[in-house]
Amino acid sequence: MDNELLRETLKSIEKGELSVDNAFANLKKMAFSDIGFAKIDHGRAYRTGHDEVIFCPGKTPDQVRKIAIELGTCGKLLATKATMEQYKAIKEEFEEVIYYKSSGTITLKAEETENTGSVLILSAGTSDQAIAEEAIVTADFLGSESKLVADVGVAGIHRLFSHQEEIDKANVIIVIAGMEGALASVVAGISTVPVIAVPTSVGYGASFNGLAALLTMMNSCAPGVAVVNIDNGFGAGYLAHIINSGSN
Amino acid sequence: MDNELLRETLKSIEKGELSVDNAFANLKKMAFSDIGFAKIDHGRAYRTGHDEVIFCPGKTPDQVRKIAIELGTCGKLLATKATMEQYKAIKEEFEEVIYYKSSGTITLKAEETENTGSVLILSAGTSDQAIAEEAIVTADFLGSESKLVADVGVAGIHRLFSHQEEIDKANVIIVIAGMEGALASVVAGISTVPVIAVPTSVGYGASFNGLAALLTMMNSCAPGVAVVNIDNGFGAGYLAHIINSGSN
Amino acid sequence: MDNELLRETLKSIEKGELSVDNAFANLKKMAFSDIGFAKIDHGRAYRTGHDEVIFCPGKTPDQVRKIAIELGTCGKLLATKATMEQYKAIKEEFEEVIYYKSSGTITLKAEETENTGSVLILSAGTSDQAIAEEAIVTADFLGSESKLVADVGVAGIHRLFSHQEEIDKANVIIVIAGMEGALASVVAGISTVPVIAVPTSVGYGASFNGLAALLTMMNSCAPGVAVVNIDNGFGAGYLAHIINSGSN
Amino acid sequence: MDNELLRETLKSIEKGELSVDNAFANLKKMAFSDIGFAKIDHGRAYRTGHDEVIFCPGKTPDQVRKIAIELGTCGKLLATKATMEQYKAIKEEFEEVIYYKSSGTITLKAEETENTGSVLILSAGTSDQAIAEEAIVTADFLGSESKLVADVGVAGIHRLFSHQEEIDKANVIIVIAGMEGALASVVAGISTVPVIAVPTSVGYGASFNGLAALLTMMNSCAPGVAVVNIDNGFGAGYLAHIINSGSN
Amino acid sequence: MDNELLRETLKSIEKGELSVDNAFANLKKMAFSDIGFAKIDHGRAYRTGHDEVIFCPGKTPDQVRKIAIELGTCGKLLATKATMEQYKAIKEEFEEVIYYKSSGTITLKAEETENTGSVLILSAGTSDQAIAEEAIVTADFLGSESKLVADVGVAGIHRLFSHQEEIDKANVIIVIAGMEGALASVVAGISTVPVIAVPTSVGYGASFNGLAALLTMMNSCAPGVAVVNIDNGFGAGYLAHIINSGSN
Amino acid sequence: MDNELLRETLKSIEKGELSVDNAFANLKKMAFSDIGFAKIDHGRAYRTGHDEVIFCPGKTPDQVRKIAIELGTCGKLLATKATMEQYKAIKEEFEEVIYYKSSGTITLKAEETENTGSVLILSAGTSDQAIAEEAIVTADFLGSESKLVADVGVAGIHRLFSHQEEIDKANVIIVIAGMEGALASVVAGISTVPVIAVPTSVGYGASFNGLAALLTMMNSCAPGVAVVNIDNGFGAGYLAHIINSGSN
Amino acid sequence: MDNELLRETLKSIEKGELSVDNAFANLKKMAFSDIGFAKIDHGRAYRTGHDEVIFCPGKTPDQVRKIAIELGTCGKLLATKATMEQYKAIKEEFEEVIYYKSSGTITLKAEETENTGSVLILSAGTSDQAIAEEAIVTADFLGSESKLVADVGVAGIHRLFSHQEEIDKANVIIVIAGMEGALASVVAGISTVPVIAVPTSVGYGASFNGLAALLTMMNSCAPGVAVVNIDNGFGAGYLAHIINSGSN
Amino acid sequence: MDNELLRETLKSIEKGELSVDNAFANLKKMAFSDIGFAKIDHGRAYRTGHDEVIFCPGKTPDQVRKIAIELGTCGKLLATKATMEQYKAIKEEFEEVIYYKSSGTITLKAEETENTGSVLILSAGTSDQAIAEEAIVTADFLGSESKLVADVGVAGIHRLFSHQEEIDKANVIIVIAGMEGALASVVAGISTVPVIAVPTSVGYGASFNGLAALLTMMNSCAPGVAVVNIDNGFGAGYLAHIINSGSN
Repeated sequence: MDNELLRETLKSIEKGELSVDNAFANLKKMAFSDIGFAKIDHGRAYRTGHDEVIFCPGKTPDQVRKIAIELGTCGKLLATKATMEQYKAIKEEFEEVIYYKSSGTITLKAEETENTGSVLILSAGTSDQAIAEEAIVTADFLGSESKLVADVGVAGIHRLFSHQEEIDKANVIIVIAGMEGALASVVAGISTVPVIAVPTSVGYGASFNGLAALLTMMNSCAPGVAVVNIDNGFGAGYLAHIINSGSN
Repeated sequence: MDNELLRETLKSIEKGELSVDNAFANLKKMAFSDIGFAKIDHGRAYRTGHDEVIFCPGKTPDQVRKIAIELGTCGKLLATKATMEQYKAIKEEFEEVIYYKSSGTITLKAEETENTGSVLILSAGTSDQAIAEEAIVTADFLGSESKLVADVGVAGIHRLFSHQEEIDKANVIIVIAGMEGALASVVAGISTVPVIAVPTSVGYGASFNGLAALLTMMNSCAPGVAVVNIDNGFGAGYLAHIINSGSN
Repeated sequence: MDNELLRETLKSIEKGELSVDNAFANLKKMAFSDIGFAKIDHGRAYRTGHDEVIFCPGKTPDQVRKIAIELGTCGKLLATKATMEQYKAIKEEFEEVIYYKSSGTITLKAEETENTGSVLILSAGTSDQAIAEEAIVTADFLGSESKLVADVGVAGIHRLFSHQEEIDKANVIIVIAGMEGALASVVAGISTVPVIAVPTSVGYGASFNGLAALLTMMNSCAPGVAVVNIDNGFGAGYLAHIINSGSN
Repeated sequence: MDNELLRETLKSIEKGELSVDNAFANLKKMAFSDIGFAKIDHGRAYRTGHDEVIFCPGKTPDQVRKIAIELGTCGKLLATKATMEQYKAIKEEFEEVIYYKSSGTITLKAEETENTGSVLILSAGTSDQAIAEEAIVTADFLGSESKLVADVGVAGIHRLFSHQEEIDKANVIIVIAGMEGALASVVAGISTVPVIAVPTSVGYGASFNGLAALLTMMNSCAPGVAVVNIDNGFGAGYLAHIINSGSN
Repeated sequence: MDNELLRETLKSIEKGELSVDNAFANLKKMAFSDIGFAKIDHGRAYRTGHDEVIFCPGKTPDQVRKIAIELGTCGKLLATKATMEQYKAIKEEFEEVIYYKSSGTITLKAEETENTGSVLILSAGTSDQAIAEEAIVTADFLGSESKLVADVGVAGIHRLFSHQEEIDKANVIIVIAGMEGALASVVAGISTVPVIAVPTSVGYGASFNGLAALLTMMNSCAPGVAVVNIDNGFGAGYLAHIINSGSN
Repeated sequence: MDNELLRETLKSIEKGELSVDNAFANLKKMAFSDIGFAKIDHGRAYRTGHDEVIFCPGKTPDQVRKIAIELGTCGKLLATKATMEQYKAIKEEFEEVIYYKSSGTITLKAEETENTGSVLILSAGTSDQAIAEEAIVTADFLGSESKLVADVGVAGIHRLFSHQEEIDKANVIIVIAGMEGALASVVAGISTVPVIAVPTSVGYGASFNGLAALLTMMNSCAPGVAVVNIDNGFGAGYLAHIINSGSN
Repeated sequence: MDNELLRETLKSIEKGELSVDNAFANLKKMAFSDIGFAKIDHGRAYRTGHDEVIFCPGKTPDQVRKIAIELGTCGKLLATKATMEQYKAIKEEFEEVIYYKSSGTITLKAEETENTGSVLILSAGTSDQAIAEEAIVTADFLGSESKLVADVGVAGIHRLFSHQEEIDKANVIIVIAGMEGALASVVAGISTVPVIAVPTSVGYGASFNGLAALLTMMNSCAPGVAVVNIDNGFGAGYLAHIINSGSN
Repeated sequence: MDNELLRETLKSIEKGELSVDNAFANLKKMAFSDIGFAKIDHGRAYRTGHDEVIFCPGKTPDQVRKIAIELGTCGKLLATKATMEQYKAIKEEFEEVIYYKSSGTITLKAEETENTGSVLILSAGTSDQAIAEEAIVTADFLGSESKLVADVGVAGIHRLFSHQEEIDKANVIIVIAGMEGALASVVAGISTVPVIAVPTSVGYGASFNGLAALLTMMNSCAPGVAVVNIDNGFGAGYLAHIINSGSN
């Protein structure tokens, strides 16, 4: 819990403006509401700057729907890796939600906001599209101007170099690559901004579902790279946004 | 190679200010100088914003010394994971270098610069000190105001919460933890800024030299976390600095 | 075999109350009955305090049914990770069995018993529900008063702290978490009682089907934690019960 | 932080017995004292029932000594996996400390206390002695009556069965085994109490420094077993004690 | 190629009984016949004592059928891990083949032979039945008298001890176990004959599809154990038979 | 980018034959064309000697079709691991494409070319057929005379030795083997030419989907062996061709 | 415990020849003697046919000496992987012990026995000598006529074939190989007897200290192979002896 | 054994020029000579084109010396990964041997030969020097003209592009890289010739002693790459030579 919040609450008690029992109850109530199988974290935006996001795998459509109701009250909602069924359950409550099929990302945005800054997403191959979509939808949803340059893997590295201008303009770059994942090191070697690397499970055999790319990115010989989980386009988009929004 | 640089060089040829052979030679020469066993990357600062850093393991003291001579001409130098012998070899050439013993980091800084922004480094235990030192020395060297709060592991999580104020002020946070590495998730859950997680090889048995902490951090249930290599304090300090310097 | 049992049997022989052949036969018969593909361990309650439990995967519905007939003679029965088909096969014989769908747990309990003590089950996320159900049904079946607090993962750690009172009252705590599994360390740091950690296979990518959470929990920097197999809600419930029942 | 503690502090403010600033300061001060490289967790006994224990690897003798001074003020101290040098550094301050050489465990106990309950430690082979020593010294230090039965591995399983009486009397059993680690399953099959399994790094080749034993114990076909980290005798001793002390 | 065969062929040439070209052709022809996608190894019985066996996975029903025609000319045939389709393809050619459904083993045996010696197969649980079936059918097919004792896992180890007599009579013992695989060590500790251990993929979570059992068996603290591949009932049955047939 | 190409372009500018802007545009245009989700690498043949090949997994049939249109303009096309749907999508545009079903390889070859040199493909078992097909189709497509000798695994090693003549005539040998993958070492010990080893995922249990064969081949005690990814018949065929075409 | 032994003891009680207390005491005493840190398993020869063997790693020289005194009373002793210090400690008590330096094996044999049967040991390279020595000394000590053929790895497979005669005469074959471990499959393909495979830690890089050879041997495409632990020459020698001694 | 050799020997017998016993003896003698602990493979040059090479680790200096005497009779010798002691042992017999210290490679070459063709070795960093030395010395020893370009890792990828001319001239390229090993993919994307990739153990943390680089290279998105063992400079040099020598 935030120290300032605690201090102010303590002061209100001292001044007699707040009874102990009420203070105690409020402190907890502010933080989350309990719907049985889940505790909706209403305090998250206060603590981390952003609302809770629904990670859909392993939840029933009905559970997803109920969490969405709690979270979507102010007209904003982000859900990731959702199935068609989970999407439909949310749509029953929120007509305007958009469903991005490749990645299963769901967004609800009350009004058009003007995004700022610049997040550049570079993907190594056409097969990495789903994860790239998850990343760009997330960064856009949170308020970052985002651009995807697809299919610039190192087998034809000149395709990457033809985008040097976009690389130079970005505040932060997301690199998405499966197979050997070498793109992250190369990009970090020609860029001045933070590079977030997303290994994908694209590949076969000794790619071991993304482990090869993960290790490659972890061992980047160029500094300025950090890595998120395999196929975690959401995590990369989120992190890119908070870096980007601090850069303006 | 940078597109702008290429375009300008092309223009100089068009204007007749530059012969083709000279242009060709220059384009290569600008980029690096070759000392046989190594190619010193003088173009790196141009491309990535910072000079090449000497990664010392596997190099002889004499190799380290020669690379230092090439890189240190403008009075700045950063070398990581250096042994005492490698340090002494550099000191022969640069009297003013500083050697940080826990981590083996070496710095040379011509004049006192005023650092800006705010990088907060949180380490889980006393045993993580070497990696924390590498991170803070790196971030400081590059120009970021940095602060270390040590020994705030989750076994006594109130120690962490008592530093909420510093957490709230930071532009970027580095979390350094071995054993189970749980600190990164907790910090990301109470912070609005990017969290760079550094797994360390502290631990024994099923820590598998840092693999356990690495996987923990990779799977963080709180967004906003990205991970660098095990024991890579330098990489975290570097990345934190470029995020921090973009935030001002 | 139990020393006391052996000694008493030996005494009966000495006194001439029991022939050698009968003693020999009885000693074996007491222990189990053989139904061909399985040996029902009737002596288990005598040795370990509890009857054998049916682990359903890999058994045909008919095998499960036959084992249930052998074990359920005194009106009690526990079966884990059962499919709907296996449940139906048991139901043919025992009308009153209850089937818990999320986890596939089956229970039969002749009469209502009054449970005692206190087992607290904390789960990190909604997706861990199946395993939490298996744990709570098991502990309840065996005779422990059990309570589940769901969705208190470390991304919003205040949700956990609001349950400090329940934590303080428990005799033993089960922590169920997938992804990075950090919850176990945090709970052990704020509790005086044994913590049984259950890694779950919830997650993706570098969670490696629960391996990440398992390693995290194994390396807990807070003492007082021990770990059971990935997704082993039954094992945790069983162990929690025998700790709890010794605590009163 | 403990809810009761918080509520009482709040009440004292309401009654005017405590100023806000003092309350704020006290709440933090009660929890730990900061000696720069470490934060001594004085609140741990309050939260978890036991003082902080010094995990020695990766700390300098001087750091260990300083932490010992902070923690040992009330004449009690436990340190694990200490080298001879670390032991000597502590001995300078506390003359009466005892050093257990096989395991590197250090204890300081002001006065003779009478231990209660019963912890039984079963080790599979002579080579597991160091870890067994760490476990028994820990449990004894914390206040549990403890007994070690060494060298009862499954290659000669009758050696185990001859100790059935001790197994029946124990409140909790620690099983320590390297190589294939099969002892834990066998013990759990003939006992009614919790079994804490400690895999050790004893073995070679495909034991992979204890990984084989860890996996064996994790997959125990007998319920009632939970596992701590490889070579973690301390963790097992600690957990055994808190189970044992709850059992009386 | 066998030295004796080579020497005799050389002698026939010397004596003029055999031309060089014919000798050369024959030497190759004796060894195998080529049916395009496969080379049927007719020389295997000569070299290893037994005909080639059809490993069915990855082959089309038609390929299996054609290989069966080549191998089954003398009325004997063994095929493993076959699907129903592969079985039907063989049955078209050989009406009398028997199909064992649990394991997918297929046998064809021209006339009733009298098996000799004694192979004992001990399986840990009911779920290991498929692999046990593959082992016993294989050993029986090759000519060994075989007996299966199922469900004698170490959780109720007295079930095993009640079969000491059969253990004492066997020439070789096959131990089949999944989960933690501890049974092999226990059996080797109470037996004087070779123990062939078969880890099975029965289990979940940290059993990692049989890896845990494999490592357990590899690290057996009792000598006299060797291990075959996970789920390799055929390999165990084959090896048991050649040990058994040498023992009479 | 190729130095010669760069130098010539620079010269054209110097001579005034080419404006800077046109030169800049051309340099990029020559390299690839952008169809949104993919950048077709038209410069690849110039750089590597061969056109881009379509790796089909993870692409929609429509994406595959569109890429094929871009690449197939000169009547040649190679696509690997394609499904029937992807094949049909290509066939809509190019009537003459051939589909190899076992491996899912697709080829389009405008006119009959005469292949030269000699690539020998040795596969260990019938189950390795799909990968062998991918290798031979690839080598043939690129212009190498190729021959497959199937089912010469080391369990009947004389089958291999009867092909010594073909081994002696080859310019390069591809060895394809799953299970234990021992064939590569044996072949390298009796051959003077480069051996490309392809581990396959054929096997079960501890083959870990080809990992066992991969490690075997990596550790070959005979020199002259290099390894490609598990099941990567295409990569082996490609590499074999470029070795073979250099050998004439 | 042996059923026959139990039955006879029971009969003695029935006949009044043995009191219950004495019977009880004797049954335990027969099995082992307790020297504190170890329980010497005097019943092992009765149960398994051979005395306990001293596995030296992790034991102090003094512990080894004391165990040797207990075990060596009848003039026979086998100890494995002993250091020079451990050897000297035993030599103090038993002047006639022999120390095999490469493997650290120690033997004591009262009188010359005539060995029978035939164990053939094939090692792949000169570097595997230590493990081969451990295997041959073990088999010889136990009473098997043993022969070593060294350096017959598959890189020059004709070296192996020149020993076909010895292969044909052996009752059992031990194959010892590091690196890729392919020798076991080849040998099993040309032999009619059981093959015990010993992976060794010889190799580097992706041999992963013997894991590559272990997996190779586990996946042998030729049946008749079983595998013991990496570097476990003792286990192979022991198993070979009990197979061999059953074969006469 | 070579078919031609066999056929000719058979013919000599037929013609009466050779007795059976002599033929039999010769066939074996030609192949190798037996010096007890090793079988020197004199037939290897006949079979594979090159003499046996001494892999030094795990051999005593005296063993290395004796093998060198057998192999070095015609004045040529290659030994790898030798210690100073092993070198000195060889030097006693062959005064002119050269010792390359970084890699421990030893060569003896009777007279100066003129090397032909072109092998290009590209190494990623200065720390990869030892492996690069092993590769270049091997290729040179066998007869290939070789050139090393060091320190062209992807963090400053322009350093690589400045060597495009050498890349275009090579017949085969060896890429040596540790850490993330991305260099191999980039090189394969800009070259028309075979690329042999050597992962090195340079790196730390999640490089896992070269495993990360190995997986990266295995998963190269650019075709034309094959991989040898971690740190296997010899294997790469050998394979490069046989490709190179076939290319002229």
